[in-house]
Amino acid sequence: MTFNLYFIRHGLAIERTEHLPDCDRPLTAEGREKTERVAKRLRQLGLNLDALIGSPLLRAQQTAEILGQVYDLPIETWPDLAPDTTFETWLASLLVWQSQHPAVNALGMVGHEPELSNWAEILLWGGCRDAIALKKAGVLGLTLPRTVSPVGEAFLFLLIPPKILL
Amino acid sequence: MTFNLYFIRHGLAIERTEHLPDCDRPLTAEGREKTERVAKRLRQLGLNLDALIGSPLLRAQQTAEILGQVYDLPIETWPDLAPDTTFETWLASLLVWQSQHPAVNALGMVGHEPELSNWAEILLWGGCRDAIALKKAGVLGLTLPRTVSPVGEAFLFLLIPPKILL
Repeated sequence: MTFNLYFIRHGLAIERTEHLPDCDRPLTAEGREKTERVAKRLRQLGLNLDALIGSPLLRAQQTAEILGQVYDLPIETWPDLAPDTTFETWLASLLVWQSQHPAVNALGMVGHEPELSNWAEILLWGGCRDAIALKKAGVLGLTLPRTVSPVGEAFLFLLIPPKILL
Repeated sequence: MTFNLYFIRHGLAIERTEHLPDCDRPLTAEGREKTERVAKRLRQLGLNLDALIGSPLLRAQQTAEILGQVYDLPIETWPDLAPDTTFETWLASLLVWQSQHPAVNALGMVGHEPELSNWAEILLWGGCRDAIALKKAGVLGLTLPRTVSPVGEAFLFLLIPPKILL
């Protein structure tokens, strides 16, 4: 029994300023438009998603909402997808979530770098060296065994920079 | 100074039979057609190739020829891209070739599984556990430092199953 996990990085957001905390940065108009085209193209290409979870930061929420509209899925929000979350904390949340949603076979998670690509590396090889480049609005696809210890047991089948989809 | 290396797996070939040695298996009509569409789409998307090298096996030669037509590039043939070539042998050939072609910044190599994805893993993480799935006519993109020891120093930026491009 395996499970497809898609890591999707948030789209292009406006820069941080003194008066705008990082967690409140929205997508730019371009970020919004590209994210929407990426989401539509992914669905058109037959990439299936059964559920969508986003980080609580605004740029990730907005990205997840765009995906949710295109895929007609509700968005769940996880504090454990925010920047600086450790792999162990995130994995514990994933395992609990999986046990509560046994029918979900394709889960999309919208989050941040370097966390998403680092977590992917740990799932693939048991450690990380920042060897994967996940672009904004880019997608990474992993197949995971349904086990409590998927570390070093995953398979990578997809890594797409958005320009390939636009 | 970095260098983009694209591993491209040969397209769908006819099955091995008693009277057809593995090295002489041609692409099927479907394999030919899909490979051509993948090649055209890659070029259309701006994926640049400065040079193309293929394994000597017929299915890889035919795949490389299709790419060569689309990209208007000649095909070089390397015995060290054939199945069962060790990583060390292949890497030695790559380093010699790079020293002879310093102006090439984007090299496409058409070969076989599991060699291509295993070599990619060694370049990325210094070892392999068959964690990367490279489909027929699929493409994998690595950025390598221009050094004699790129092992564990590469970056993965692209892994595309052909269905995403068709």
